[in-house]
Parts: sequence; C-alpha cells; structure tokens
Amino acid sequence: MPLTPDQRAEIEAARATPRPTLRAVSEGMEAHLYRAHEVLDHGFIRVIDYMGDDAAIVQAARVSYGAGTKHVQNDEGLIRYLMRHWHSTPFEMCEIKLHVKLPVFVARQWIRHRTANVNEYSARYSILDREFYIPQPEQLAAQSVVNNQGRGEVLTGAESARVLDILKRDAAQCYDNYESMLSQDGQQGLARELARMNLPMNIYTQWYWKVDLHNLFHFLRLRADAHAQYEIRVYAEAIAATVKDWVPLAFAAFEDYRMGGATLSAKAISVLKRQLKGETVTQEESGMSKGEWREFCDIWG
Amino acid sequence: MPLTPDQRAEIEAARATPRPTLRAVSEGMEAHLYRAHEVLDHGFIRVIDYMGDDAAIVQAARVSYGAGTKHVQNDEGLIRYLMRHWHSTPFEMCEIKLHVKLPVFVARQWIRHRTANVNEYSARYSILDREFYIPQPEQLAAQSVVNNQGRGEVLTGAESARVLDILKRDAAQCYDNYESMLSQDGQQGLARELARMNLPMNIYTQWYWKVDLHNLFHFLRLRADAHAQYEIRVYAEAIAATVKDWVPLAFAAFEDYRMGGATLSAKAISVLKRQLKGETVTQEESGMSKGEWREFCDIWG
Amino acid sequence: MPLTPDQRAEIEAARATPRPTLRAVSEGMEAHLYRAHEVLDHGFIRVIDYMGDDAAIVQAARVSYGAGTKHVQNDEGLIRYLMRHWHSTPFEMCEIKLHVKLPVFVARQWIRHRTANVNEYSARYSILDREFYIPQPEQLAAQSVVNNQGRGEVLTGAESARVLDILKRDAAQCYDNYESMLSQDGQQGLARELARMNLPMNIYTQWYWKVDLHNLFHFLRLRADAHAQYEIRVYAEAIAATVKDWVPLAFAAFEDYRMGGATLSAKAISVLKRQLKGETVTQEESGMSKGEWREFCDIWG
Amino acid sequence: MPLTPDQRAEIEAARATPRPTLRAVSEGMEAHLYRAHEVLDHGFIRVIDYMGDDAAIVQAARVSYGAGTKHVQNDEGLIRYLMRHWHSTPFEMCEIKLHVKLPVFVARQWIRHRTANVNEYSARYSILDREFYIPQPEQLAAQSVVNNQGRGEVLTGAESARVLDILKRDAAQCYDNYESMLSQDGQQGLARELARMNLPMNIYTQWYWKVDLHNLFHFLRLRADAHAQYEIRVYAEAIAATVKDWVPLAFAAFEDYRMGGATLSAKAISVLKRQLKGETVTQEESGMSKGEWREFCDIWG
Repeated sequence: MPLTPDQRAEIEAARATPRPTLRAVSEGMEAHLYRAHEVLDHGFIRVIDYMGDDAAIVQAARVSYGAGTKHVQNDEGLIRYLMRHWHSTPFEMCEIKLHVKLPVFVARQWIRHRTANVNEYSARYSILDREFYIPQPEQLAAQSVVNNQGRGEVLTGAESARVLDILKRDAAQCYDNYESMLSQDGQQGLARELARMNLPMNIYTQWYWKVDLHNLFHFLRLRADAHAQYEIRVYAEAIAATVKDWVPLAFAAFEDYRMGGATLSAKAISVLKRQLKGETVTQEESGMSKGEWREFCDIWG
Repeated sequence: MPLTPDQRAEIEAARATPRPTLRAVSEGMEAHLYRAHEVLDHGFIRVIDYMGDDAAIVQAARVSYGAGTKHVQNDEGLIRYLMRHWHSTPFEMCEIKLHVKLPVFVARQWIRHRTANVNEYSARYSILDREFYIPQPEQLAAQSVVNNQGRGEVLTGAESARVLDILKRDAAQCYDNYESMLSQDGQQGLARELARMNLPMNIYTQWYWKVDLHNLFHFLRLRADAHAQYEIRVYAEAIAATVKDWVPLAFAAFEDYRMGGATLSAKAISVLKRQLKGETVTQEESGMSKGEWREFCDIWG
Repeated sequence: MPLTPDQRAEIEAARATPRPTLRAVSEGMEAHLYRAHEVLDHGFIRVIDYMGDDAAIVQAARVSYGAGTKHVQNDEGLIRYLMRHWHSTPFEMCEIKLHVKLPVFVARQWIRHRTANVNEYSARYSILDREFYIPQPEQLAAQSVVNNQGRGEVLTGAESARVLDILKRDAAQCYDNYESMLSQDGQQGLARELARMNLPMNIYTQWYWKVDLHNLFHFLRLRADAHAQYEIRVYAEAIAATVKDWVPLAFAAFEDYRMGGATLSAKAISVLKRQLKGETVTQEESGMSKGEWREFCDIWG
Repeated sequence: MPLTPDQRAEIEAARATPRPTLRAVSEGMEAHLYRAHEVLDHGFIRVIDYMGDDAAIVQAARVSYGAGTKHVQNDEGLIRYLMRHWHSTPFEMCEIKLHVKLPVFVARQWIRHRTANVNEYSARYSILDREFYIPQPEQLAAQSVVNNQGRGEVLTGAESARVLDILKRDAAQCYDNYESMLSQDGQQGLARELARMNLPMNIYTQWYWKVDLHNLFHFLRLRADAHAQYEIRVYAEAIAATVKDWVPLAFAAFEDYRMGGATLSAKAISVLKRQLKGETVTQEESGMSKGEWREFCDIWG
C-alpha cells in the first residue's frame, strides 16, 4: 500500500489540469506524470517532471556538429550513431525528476551515483513512518556459494519462516522503541536526530532525485543488470519502463548498445578472431585468467 | 544582426504552437521561450527549455524537511530561509537550457563553470561564420592602473580609432585566409580541424548550455558582478533578466542575499562591533592588510 | 577501542619506513599519516595520503595570474586574497585521502557531499563488525523546542537510563539475529546482501574518502558548524585539526573568512549602516522577517 | 624550445632535493617529476605531483570488498577484475597533477573533460608569450572526403607552402598588433582583457591540470584514440607514457580492456555468434546500418 487515498486524490488533481506550454512535450511521458509505479512492498517511483525528448537530443547534436550531421538521414540513425560512439553530451540535454520511496539499504547503494541532485526526507526534522521492507518468500535467498556478492538458492520451510519472523519482529520492536524514545508520558522525548539511529536499514525513506539522461543510462546499465541486487534492480526496471515511453529512440539505442551489448578486451578480440578462422582456443592459450575465461564463455559459449 | 530572417521565422513557428502539459509551468518563462535576447554585436541568449518554478523549490524542500517546514507560513519565507542558510539542493531541482552565441574568449571564461552540460558548435565538423566581436568605442578601455585585471579610462581619439582598426582588419584578414585555406581552386583544401587555428578569439561560437538553478546562481554571482569582464557580464545580466521572470521569489532572495550581500571575516565583524559601540578603528588596529582594509571601507565607509 | 593491536602494529610498521620523494612534503601532515584519531566510541579518522601544501596553492595561483601576483608580497597575503575573493581553483590543487570509521546515520549525511571519491566497506561482500554507536549520557539530549533540527536539554535520570538501555538492547538483538540469519547449524544462511537490512543505523561502517581542499573546506564549514549534528561535528573537528597542521596558512584564512565570518544580506548591510550612524532600527523597519531578525541580533546584539 | 634555461635550472633544483615521506611512493613516477616532455613545437607536459600507486588501488578495493577480495590471489588479478567490471572508485583513489603548455584550440577540446581541476594562465592578468603552434609539413593534411571530422591526404608543394606561410604570417601580425595595442609610446594601452581577443587560437597557453586516475583513463581512451585530432593525441600519448611508469598494472589493464578493447552491440554479438557457427551474414541480414556495418567489418574483417 504505497499510496494513501489522500495521495491518490492529490495525484489525480495534479493530472486533471493540463496547461499550455511551448516546450518540447513527450506524449509518452505525460501519461506517466505523477503516477506512482509500485516497487517492492511499500515503495514506488513517480515521474515529477522531465525536460526534452528524442528530438532534443538530435537538436543538441546538430548544434555541435552543424552541417556535419546532415548526411545522417534521420533522427534514429543519428541517435544510434551518438550512442555507438560514446557521445555523451547530447543525452545530457534531457533531464528527469523522480520521486522515489525506497528502503534505506537501497538508498545507500543508489546515492553512490554522484552526478545527480537529491532532496531526501530528513529524519532530523521529521518522524519516519512505520514502513519496512519485508522480502517476499521467493526473494529470501541463501548466500551464493560461487559469488561473493550474489544470492543462491531460495530458502525454504523452517529457515525461510525463521528469517521472515526475525525481520518482522526486529523491525517492529525497533520502531516501537523509536516512538517511545521520541515521546513518552511525563518525559521530554529524545531528539529526533538521535532516536533515528535505532531504526533498521529496511525502513523506507523517500527522496526527489533529478538526473540527466546520460547519467541515468549509466545508472540503469549498472542497476538494471542481472548482477545488481534484486531490491535495487526492480527500481531500475520501473524507471526504465518510463524512459522507454519518454525517449523511445534513445532507449532502443541504449538497449542495443549498452544493456544487450558487451565489452571485449584486446585478448578476447584476438581469441574470437582465431575462432572465426576455425581455430580451437583453450583458456591457457587465451592469455586470460580462469575467471575471465569463464565470463568469456558465458557470452560466446 | 544576431538572427537571420530564417531564424526569426523558425522561432515564431516554435512559439505559435502551444501544447498541453501536466508539468509545472512558469508563465513568466513561457514568454521568453526561444526568443533571442541580443547581447554584444552579434551574440544572444535564448531559453530553449526549463524545468520547475518557485513552487518546485518549495516542494522539494518540503520533501526534505517534512512536517518541519510547516511552521514557515509561505513560499517566500521558506525560499528566503533556504537561501539564507545555504540549502542548495532545493534550488538544484530547477533546470534551464540556453542557446548562447558568444565570442570565443568569453566562452573560455564561461566553460570554467564545470557543473553544467554543454554542446558546442564544432569547428572540426563545420565552418564557422564570419562574425567577430568588435567592441563599441565606449567599451575600449585602457588597462587599469590599480587593478591587474580591470579596465581604466576609455580610450579616445586616435588611439581608439587605431585599436578599432586593428581589430577589424586582423579579424577580416584571418577569416579571409581561413576560407582560402579551406578551399581554393585547384587545391585540396586544408582540414577544418587545422584551419580553425588561424581564427582570432573574438570570433563567435555558439552552444547549448544546461545548468541547474543553484549552479546558475553561482555563475550569476560571479559573472554579473561589477568586477567581471564587461563582455561576460552582459550575458549574465541578460540571463538574470529571464531568471527573474522564471522564479521571481528565488531571484529576489538571490538578489538580497548574494548579489547585494557581503561576506565578512571574523576580523571585519570584530571591527564593526567596535564601531557600533562608537569606537574609532584604524587599519593598523584592525588586523587587516591594506588591501583588505580598502575593500572593507568600500562597503562601510 | 577503535583499533585492534594488529591494526596498531600495522600503522607503526607503515610509519617506520620513510622513503625519499621529490614531491611537495608537509612536515605537519607527515606526523599525522596513518595514525588514528579517535572519534565517538568506536570511530576514527586517519590520513592515508595527501597531495600539496600551502606552497602548492600559491604556485597554482601564480600559474593563473602570472606576473599579476607579483605585487602580493608573500604567500600568506596571497592565500588570504584568494580565500577572500572566492578563488576556488588554487585550493583544489591540494588533495587528501582519509580512512574514516563512522556510524551509518553519520555516513548518510556525509555522502551528501558529492564532489569526493569514496570506497565504502561493502556489506554485500563482507560481514559487518559488532560495533554500534551508543552516545555518552551527556549527549543524550531532548528534542529542541525552538529548533526543528536541534537538541535541547540533556536527558537525566530514568529517561536517560531508559534510552541508553533501549539503544544497547536493540542493537545487540538485531546483531545477534543478523548473525543467526547468516549462519545457523543445519541451515543454508541468508545472503549477506539481505541480512544486512536488519542492522540499525548506529552500526559502524568505514570508508576511504578522498577530496580536494576547496571541497573539504566547504564540508568543514557546514559540518564543523555549531548547528551541525554533534555526531558529524566531532569528525569535522578531528579532520580540521589535521588540516591545520597540513596547510596552516590556508587553514588560518579559512578560519577567519569562513568559520568565523558571516554573510550579510543587502537588508542587513543597510540596517548596519544606519546603526553605525547612531540610528536605532527595529525589526519592523528592517524589512527582515522575525526569524531573520533574530539571527541578525544573534551576531550583532 | 619549450623550456628556457632558467626553467631547466629550476627543474634541476627541484629534482636535486629529495625529502623523506611516509606516503606511497611510485619509483617510476619519481623519475618523471617536474621534467618536461616536449609535445608539438612549443608545448610540454610535466608531472608536478601525484598521489598513490598500484598498491593504493588494491588497498581501496580491499576496504570496499573486505574479505570478499581475499580469493583473488594477487594485485594484478584484482586490478584486472576491477577494470573488467567497471569498478571505477578504486581508480579514483589515485591522483595526478600536470603542468601542460598547449595551443588554445587544443585547450578548448581538453577542457570539455569536466571532472578535473584547472588553473589556467590568465590573459586578463598577464601578457601571453609570442609562441604559436605551426604544424610540421607532414601534419598539414587536407579535409577527409569520407569523414566529417578527419584528415585526408597530406598537402604538398605549393599548397603546403601557402598554408604554412599564412599561418606564420597571420600569427606574427596578430601578435605584433596585440603588443602594439597593449603599449605604444604616448598612448594609454588597451586593457589586457580586451587586447587578447586579437590573438589566434594557435597561440600557446598553459595550465595546471589535476585529475584522478579513473577520469584520466577516460580522457586517454578518447584522446589517445586514432580518431582524436593529432594535436591533442600527442599530449594524450605523452601523458600515457608517464602513467605507464606510475601505475604499471593499472595501465596494462587499461590497455587490454579499454584502448585495445571494443564494445559490441546486441546486434553485433548476434552476428558474431552466427559467424562462429560458420554462417555467412550480410549487412542486410545483420540489422545494422551501413555505417555500423562498415565499422563492424573494420574490426572483424
């Protein structure tokens, strides 16, 4: 239940009153504005504002390259060319502002992307709500035995139940104590900036997050990736779905060159060229380490 | 003549077709969109897009401070509070995209502000136009004798005429030679990326420049300042005039706290306190250097 | 007990083997290198590396201003001039790398300073230690009744005891459960990236933090300020003490112009000028709001 | 002749007095410190300071990944792993400060890399030297007929001579007039900030440039690339040569994964997989545009 009835009413009111503008308008994005896309058990992402569209990327590129871009016949071709050749500045000409509600341990990963603007709800000023992320049973996975930062098999039966019980119980108790430290009959109440330290990292926070499209693509590449932690990946996927409607040509190029693409080392290129000639190459002959060879084979078989 | 008739027609076309949006709209800024504000002899600034308005600053602050902001009665008071206490992130929630045409030596100062997005017209791809900044006679000033980076008296008579003549003649000759190196009957033509090195730094370039409101205020504080070089100050002033119409409350706070304000050192505070008690303080007693004392007296008499 | 005997031995070993270098050396900073300065109950800051010294600031400024700086007689005068006139780039030419151990809720404030490089200990890869920040009784303060983000009176007697007891008990229980979710006889063990969500925000984390001197001064101005939360202020103060030994001239200028200085609005300047002439000015006549007037009187009486 | 005898003497003096430090020392880099590596006809790069070495990258990574990095047996393997998986923050823990003398048109490309610190010689404060970049005849190339931003055949005979003559003559005349505007018997002299606009963009400027290793690698990838303009590429190559001596393991990983590597789109991966199975694929069947197919064939034949 990420949104209260009041919040839903407020969103509907904001969506009911279109106003005329002379700016670039993306029809696809207008359909998303203010609407909450639910993520995890209490979280969401909402688009609050945006600047630019596919045409704005092309327009900025044509300022840079002047007559030099005329030989590219259409916008799609130019956008794909820019993405392929790592021209980042035209994509920086689009901007998006999101309202995100997310668990604190996800927020701590997210904030590592520094080239963005953030206004986070402050627990020095205000009291946090009683909302914690409790994973669905199918997300309660064991530590991976092959990957230091991954998940393995899903927990089952008694172990799963025990973990869920701990997470719920500790969150409830910590929050009860947070509240009772803040305010108790006949007592002064601990300062909010101190009381918050008793809260566990699955409590939800929220923020406004504003970022340009180039840096957003970088975020999505890392966080919508299969190796990203599930709890941040679902946010990245929800954002990606709105970006696809906002700048469909840029998003398609991003999918082809970044999400679905791969980076090869000089060694890997050399191995592939030998294989294309029909040669068989072993790890020992490749010059790659075992880990690198395993990753190479994951792509190329 | 910064704009050609074609460009004027294009601007009028863009301004003729408002579209509905659900985003925040600033009426004041809509009136500026795409219109060229002329600066210097061939330059201009044009607002290409914007995100947010005064209410967006307030909204972001209320996300951060939650219930803690409720005691501030109105938007103006909250915006002034944010500016006074150096809360930068709510102002970062507004963004502006400008098209600027400016001499290269101005562009070289401007680009030192790194927290912005830029797409500049590339003289590797395209041929620059024959447009140079030639100062008005009243801007042709001598080197200041007291300030290493300032201007003194305006040049007059023969000296003024000589300087103007040099600037015009050298620009014309360099451009003629630029063109003749690029293309000459029966010759191959020098690569554009090489030929451009023959152009003087008063030639005009252009770029799209996108920046958030916090960083724009920082730019305006430094570049609309009386000590800034005239040729960049007029750009800052033209931008400031549009910002005033875009976010009037934030701009008024900026004017009061930044443009019209002053920063005092601990030593200066101590001197002022003694003066408020009726004491007379000399430079020697102030602990300030001569230069610092002079600057202090410029403000306080 | 922030450091183990092993860590102390490692630090002594690193400090035992000076090597020759041709780079700028700050004797004052060499004395701090690697040594842990204890902060709070389990935290510390340690200088891991540094680049530059006072002379490096001057050298960079002289590259910029060339012959124009020759009239400033000495390094101290030039550094004070640069600080007074907001010349930021020469200060950016110095860099410091710190190892910091700090509670997570402090880390969340700290990371908001984006212009820095960070490597944080990852609880996806590794298991966090059983160390929590538990405030000293004299730091257990009530919520301020006048300031939404401040502390009021220190708690006493039963309330103080109750709060301390809660903080210790909840931290212990959450950590016990974190451990038991990670590993339990006969069970698989929950993935570390999930188990960490059960930990409260007073647990300690650690990171390497690298920043240039200009941005460090900005951090210190905000975080060593009397209005900053005590738990981050003590870190800022510990860092400030090492900076004072590293770049004594720059630090003295910073103290005079930033830490001990004040920023006045145009309205405040106007009031002070009237007061200097012997006039009495009331809040109503000042044009300031009540809150602003109160802050003005806090400085000027 | 980039360096005067005085400058050479100063460098030798700085190199003659090693001092003890406890910081990380890179022997390879100490050998470069202060020495000018000549670039183009009057330019150079000089390393003024550095922070960290290969071991500092590993150390920062081990802070992040804790026990999780223990299974990587050695520093080289870990550094290669970090580079392969786009872990940028450990590389940000190294920093370099360079003194660079370069033509203005090169400086204008260079400054587009925003994540760096810069102090440039100011022509508002000081008078620029009479030094211009005049290309070697073998660098005087025609505009490429296939690439909008590239060079084609080298000019020969009369055309080459004509171009060289223009470049030399216009530079000399513009500089003579710059000097005569600044100072002429019986006249006041034009302000430096104005007179500089008469100088062509092949005049030399200089700056201090400080950047972390991650961002430096990004710069080198783009500017040491075969498609970069020759005049900036030679600077990138000179810097790369010092980086190789500074952090040999990181540089080797950079060469394998970035300089010698390639990025493949999803479409390109799919084509290569079909080719590996022995299939013949045409451009039409590839889903790629003609330009993209040409670039694909450039690598894979």
